[in-house]
Amino acid sequence: MTATPYPHDPHAPHIDVPGRIMAREMAEQPAVLQRILDKGAPAVRRVAQEIAARAPRFVLLTARGTSDNAALYAKYLLEIRLGLPCGLTSMSTTTAYGARPDLTDVLVIAVSQSGGSPDLVASTRAARESGAITLAVTNNADSALAGVSEYHIDILAGPEKALPATKTYTASLLALYLFAEGLRGGDGSAARVLPGLAEQLLARQDEVRAIAARYRFAERMVITSRGYGYPTAKEAALKLMETSYIPALSYSGADLLHGPLAMVDNVSPVIAVVTDGKGGEMLQPVLDRLRGRGADLFVVGPGNRVERASVGFVLPTENVAEEVQPVLEIIPLQLLAHEVTIARGQDPDAPRALAKITETH
Amino acid sequence: MTATPYPHDPHAPHIDVPGRIMAREMAEQPAVLQRILDKGAPAVRRVAQEIAARAPRFVLLTARGTSDNAALYAKYLLEIRLGLPCGLTSMSTTTAYGARPDLTDVLVIAVSQSGGSPDLVASTRAARESGAITLAVTNNADSALAGVSEYHIDILAGPEKALPATKTYTASLLALYLFAEGLRGGDGSAARVLPGLAEQLLARQDEVRAIAARYRFAERMVITSRGYGYPTAKEAALKLMETSYIPALSYSGADLLHGPLAMVDNVSPVIAVVTDGKGGEMLQPVLDRLRGRGADLFVVGPGNRVERASVGFVLPTENVAEEVQPVLEIIPLQLLAHEVTIARGQDPDAPRALAKITETH
Repeated sequence: MTATPYPHDPHAPHIDVPGRIMAREMAEQPAVLQRILDKGAPAVRRVAQEIAARAPRFVLLTARGTSDNAALYAKYLLEIRLGLPCGLTSMSTTTAYGARPDLTDVLVIAVSQSGGSPDLVASTRAARESGAITLAVTNNADSALAGVSEYHIDILAGPEKALPATKTYTASLLALYLFAEGLRGGDGSAARVLPGLAEQLLARQDEVRAIAARYRFAERMVITSRGYGYPTAKEAALKLMETSYIPALSYSGADLLHGPLAMVDNVSPVIAVVTDGKGGEMLQPVLDRLRGRGADLFVVGPGNRVERASVGFVLPTENVAEEVQPVLEIIPLQLLAHEVTIARGQDPDAPRALAKITETH
Repeated sequence: MTATPYPHDPHAPHIDVPGRIMAREMAEQPAVLQRILDKGAPAVRRVAQEIAARAPRFVLLTARGTSDNAALYAKYLLEIRLGLPCGLTSMSTTTAYGARPDLTDVLVIAVSQSGGSPDLVASTRAARESGAITLAVTNNADSALAGVSEYHIDILAGPEKALPATKTYTASLLALYLFAEGLRGGDGSAARVLPGLAEQLLARQDEVRAIAARYRFAERMVITSRGYGYPTAKEAALKLMETSYIPALSYSGADLLHGPLAMVDNVSPVIAVVTDGKGGEMLQPVLDRLRGRGADLFVVGPGNRVERASVGFVLPTENVAEEVQPVLEIIPLQLLAHEVTIARGQDPDAPRALAKITETH
């Protein structure tokens, strides 16, 4: 498919190229997704069944950074498919201000790759003391967060060494999807297509590289979506910022019309994440308005939506349920962050200022 | 204080200067806040008492744009001072995906200046049908949103004609503060100082104008805060974007360390909103780290925090409770958005692409 030995070839020699670590971890995603389906799913189902038996009435999700975007995906799933009202936690209300709400009947889900951030641990411990059912979703079963939580789901992604999280993001999404399915008594079969399709997406690196050239000199970007695709827009913006340092602003399509649209013109490229389903349908009027303003529009979505954009990346969406599409649609955008960063002469493996485990209090 | 007849002199002649409408509405804020305290408070207290008697266990807040930032302020208040778990609604789960959660014991608060956005009306109607206690907080008692909600609080801000919302933001904050106080049986007396202090802040326009010169050529900005000040950071970013079109990214101090910090260097100005209280204390390590990176740092906060910044705007915080400081701290940032926009040769009253009532579905 391409002469370059990365990112989708895990057996590539250890050439010292920029972004090698991130590339290798992106390439592991099909195997990680398959591992979760094969080895992780039964444990996830048991946790879900035990929690379902306790009939939580509300869900609070706690996370930061990339994991916060995975938590937002879970919020959509739980609200839409289970009718469970959800909120995202403002951690400082507990850790700084000492709030101790009554959390009877409340399920608190903390999502963290490392399971090590002190504020997550403290707020989850406080939630459990306040009566919540607590669930940690992490990549480290021995972590402090797993320890303080009543339940734990291991996302089985293996060690993640690159500073920009990639495989732990898609692994978190899949684990959360299987958990939500278990909670409602579904079989999660819609996820079975994901590893194979992820492999296909990773093989299209050259296509992404050509698109990346477009952003070589971009001073800012706007990334938009709606519904299930909105967490993807937020995660893509975070990935672009932490690798390339391009200020990337993410908005739900609806919020974009309430103010920030003033900032979009023919010098502000827009990336739209269009799911094949209700989310994409609701986004279409926003895309029409953006095109009317002459925006440079890159659409990641199904073929019929891509046709009308400045440039597009066609996602395989046939027979892929809308609720699992986020696991796939972030992949070309991870590749884009990687390629744009290299095109700008920077190294995705060496972002300035970041530590892998960010300790916030 | 200044020879310019705007923005704090409501009796200024109708000179055709850029930003005249926004300036006049910013200048009305002390009078609006006083009106809410004098005329609005009893009705707010009655609504709060009736809702308190129904003992809601969970709160969902629904809003978009500027009102969404006011809703976030209410989330902090309700979690910290009432121990009520809160969530911000993802409206599309109802309007696009048809989710119908069981909302028994749930208070749904919809905040909207116009009360006219169809998606807010639809999701609030659906929430009421699903068993929620519904409360609309609007500037229009005759609006569709007020009509579909069981309870209504009028923010009494008078007609707002400028596209960037200013007086309806501070009015919403005060109304939500008084509501939260009513819910917990407090007297809301901490708010009494606000109109006088708001007047003092508006009189310091020249000071803000001098700071605005700094951002004449800024290509992007990062605005950060923590705790009660975080909604101010988000609202300041929105205000700057919709008037000046500068991409302004807002992050809680904790989230800033999880990725976006890579984007901050000596070409990315940072504005920090530092409340006098726990929020400001928790933000200090983030500010120290930003200074260590050579960031250009503008601090809006109490005198002792401002001293260590590149430039500062001292807020009056003595005898001002942390939970009401957000009503004041946005004012210099509204003035900043106005002044930066004029400094860049644009008109704050004529943002591209915006309609006053944004109809999202």
